[in-house]
Amino acid sequence: MPSISNKGQQMPASPIRKLVPYAEAAKKRGVNVIHLNIGQPDIKTPKVALDAVRNHNIEVLSYSMTEGSEEYRQKIAAYYAKKDIHVSAQEIIVTTGGSEALSFAMGTIMDAGDEIIIPEPFYANYNGFATAMGVNVVPIASSIDENFALPPISDFERLISPKTKAILICNPGNPTGYLYSKEEIEQLAALVKKHNLFLIADEVYREFTYDGREHFSILQLGGLDDYAIVVDSVSKRYSMCGARIGCLVSKNKEAIQTALKFAQARLSPPTFAQIASEAALETPQEYFDDVIHEYVARRNTLVSELKKLEGVKVAVPQGAFYCVVELPIADADDFAQWLLENFEMEGSTVMVAPAAGFYATPGLGKNQIRIAYVLEKEQLVKAVQILGAALKQYNA
Amino acid sequence: MPSISNKGQQMPASPIRKLVPYAEAAKKRGVNVIHLNIGQPDIKTPKVALDAVRNHNIEVLSYSMTEGSEEYRQKIAAYYAKKDIHVSAQEIIVTTGGSEALSFAMGTIMDAGDEIIIPEPFYANYNGFATAMGVNVVPIASSIDENFALPPISDFERLISPKTKAILICNPGNPTGYLYSKEEIEQLAALVKKHNLFLIADEVYREFTYDGREHFSILQLGGLDDYAIVVDSVSKRYSMCGARIGCLVSKNKEAIQTALKFAQARLSPPTFAQIASEAALETPQEYFDDVIHEYVARRNTLVSELKKLEGVKVAVPQGAFYCVVELPIADADDFAQWLLENFEMEGSTVMVAPAAGFYATPGLGKNQIRIAYVLEKEQLVKAVQILGAALKQYNA
Ligand SMILES: Cc1ncc(COP(=O)(O)O)c(C=O)c1O
Ligand SMILES: Cc1ncc(COP(=O)(O)O)c(C=O)c1O
Repeated sequence: MPSISNKGQQMPASPIRKLVPYAEAAKKRGVNVIHLNIGQPDIKTPKVALDAVRNHNIEVLSYSMTEGSEEYRQKIAAYYAKKDIHVSAQEIIVTTGGSEALSFAMGTIMDAGDEIIIPEPFYANYNGFATAMGVNVVPIASSIDENFALPPISDFERLISPKTKAILICNPGNPTGYLYSKEEIEQLAALVKKHNLFLIADEVYREFTYDGREHFSILQLGGLDDYAIVVDSVSKRYSMCGARIGCLVSKNKEAIQTALKFAQARLSPPTFAQIASEAALETPQEYFDDVIHEYVARRNTLVSELKKLEGVKVAVPQGAFYCVVELPIADADDFAQWLLENFEMEGSTVMVAPAAGFYATPGLGKNQIRIAYVLEKEQLVKAVQILGAALKQYNA
Repeated sequence: MPSISNKGQQMPASPIRKLVPYAEAAKKRGVNVIHLNIGQPDIKTPKVALDAVRNHNIEVLSYSMTEGSEEYRQKIAAYYAKKDIHVSAQEIIVTTGGSEALSFAMGTIMDAGDEIIIPEPFYANYNGFATAMGVNVVPIASSIDENFALPPISDFERLISPKTKAILICNPGNPTGYLYSKEEIEQLAALVKKHNLFLIADEVYREFTYDGREHFSILQLGGLDDYAIVVDSVSKRYSMCGARIGCLVSKNKEAIQTALKFAQARLSPPTFAQIASEAALETPQEYFDDVIHEYVARRNTLVSELKKLEGVKVAVPQGAFYCVVELPIADADDFAQWLLENFEMEGSTVMVAPAAGFYATPGLGKNQIRIAYVLEKEQLVKAVQILGAALKQYNA
């Protein structure tokens, strides 16, 4: 039998997927499983986007332009302008989700053996894309005690080697919910300029900022044009993860021209999804106001409920819709499985994402879980009650 | 300014894209450009597929399953069964086009520096995917004089090194139109078993076979389960290239499990496109009969018209909808540009794809072009007349 590749063997399996059979077994036993583990919002997709697809009048569903239609990219540029981000249609490549933008970005600037520094905990699939390219992720730990703020620049500097090509941040962060301040972005900007590195910012949660805080994009900084690459997506913004549309944005011409060659190889992004995404740009502001209002209420509920539990530490999220929680246990992998296999309260249990999967440093995050607050408040209250009861029983 | 990757620099730019500005300039001058260069069929997408999307009742456009829905994969398996290909839903991963299936297949079995043998001329984007992975394409020349039949197995054997991981064929072929016989497939099967290699078959043109010839899939051969990986797509089958749905099929469990990890990193294939693709499986047989009938007529027209031209050699296609043509010129790149810049006949000219882009060996195919016969017969007749007049003038 011919053997599969080394990188295929090293590709991380989804950390949540391991738990799925246990969740299914629990459901089969009649247990109600409350899912705190998923990043799929329950919010409705804007009607204007869904209707545009319903009203399509396509006769031949042909390839679209590799970089996305000129018209759609113009409109994306106009969307950015409203966010005080000034880019042209030529500086945007439409991709199949933020996922594809991430892999184009990595491929554009890194060869096998190169290094990318990423504050951990981070979105687990960064590991997958890096492994697929033979690129090494160099993690730099941020701490729950600092609310997962940017680690000191001197810590970054210590990790920079001749192989380092880029720093990647997620802002606001999945799984941390941390929103980097303008000052933190400025520090990173000075660092990448000093060491001639790219700064990639995954800004797919741009809209989700709370308590009056404003998102500050790396593209808003002067002097960073050659260094900044932004990864974006419609998935979370319009609650349309299934569309599979995102984009890569950079003012570095060489980077865009190179990314375009990767894009050409896969021909074009999906057409129906582009129709939906272009229409989604017409979503009225109230939609976002309502969504933010809802997420703030959910976050407040979740955090105040969690704070009632003994020995539980929680980083208060300022953005996105995730929250990292430290529990009075040794091994969240074991606990998460136990919750599904051995626990129920009034017929219900919860499924959580063990946080170790979001760290690259072995051993970190073992007593942490990630909770996605994409559920209604009543469900969140109930879920935390279950968690509290479960912790007592698990630790007894 | 930070530098882009070596592989980014090596990524081939689309060979046709270079010609686009000349085509646009010609159109601006009022010249009618007949496109013989594109692989986008003009055939209508089945109504049943387009209607399914029109009638969607989605409220939250959420991620689908990473490997595609169970139901859709069951139906794909049923489609294969009708083609005498016996696979289960678990042996199928739904991908974002055949393009993504190709990159998953390469990633699953090859690391940077590994080699893959591909008969040339071949689909140009194989180069792109290989470069993106740091994999080396080892070409093996097939000849227009043999109608691009499989090169002798001894030629393959000479090219096998310790780095060789796979042989990739396209059947029927883009750009050759060649349909491999059962005997040729059997020879390849024996070879990969002897040398413990994977055999990847790109069968996206499976339905397009002519003159009563039947397609023979590598999955129809007994004893090849551990070696065979098929790349498939709805793009050409249902004339729905813009959907972006394909699949990877293998009975090698390790290969499927590994490919699934690559798939997990990018989350899921596009949802609307899956709805269209699932519905497309209901396309009535007459649709295909009509399409094949039309392509045969076009091919016959094209070939008989081309044969009237002096010094022109043509490989008669048995499948797909491309045709490689050898012209009495030295440099098809130059000729293709000249056609757009300097030639017109009764207000029209043609755009062709220089074939050198389909060869990996430098210098091969320089006097060849690829013609896609995705145009109506009258247009094809006119295009060949233009080509004939142009050759006379160009060579004068
Ligand atoms: C931080 C982050 N980046 C990127 C993505 C990829 O999303 P998509 O490919 O749906 O745009 C996700 C999805 O959860 C995410 O959380
Ligand atoms: C031989 C071959 N393989 C694969 C593809 C990729 O097609 P898609 O990604 O649209 O399925 C094409 C497209 O032209 C092709 O010609």
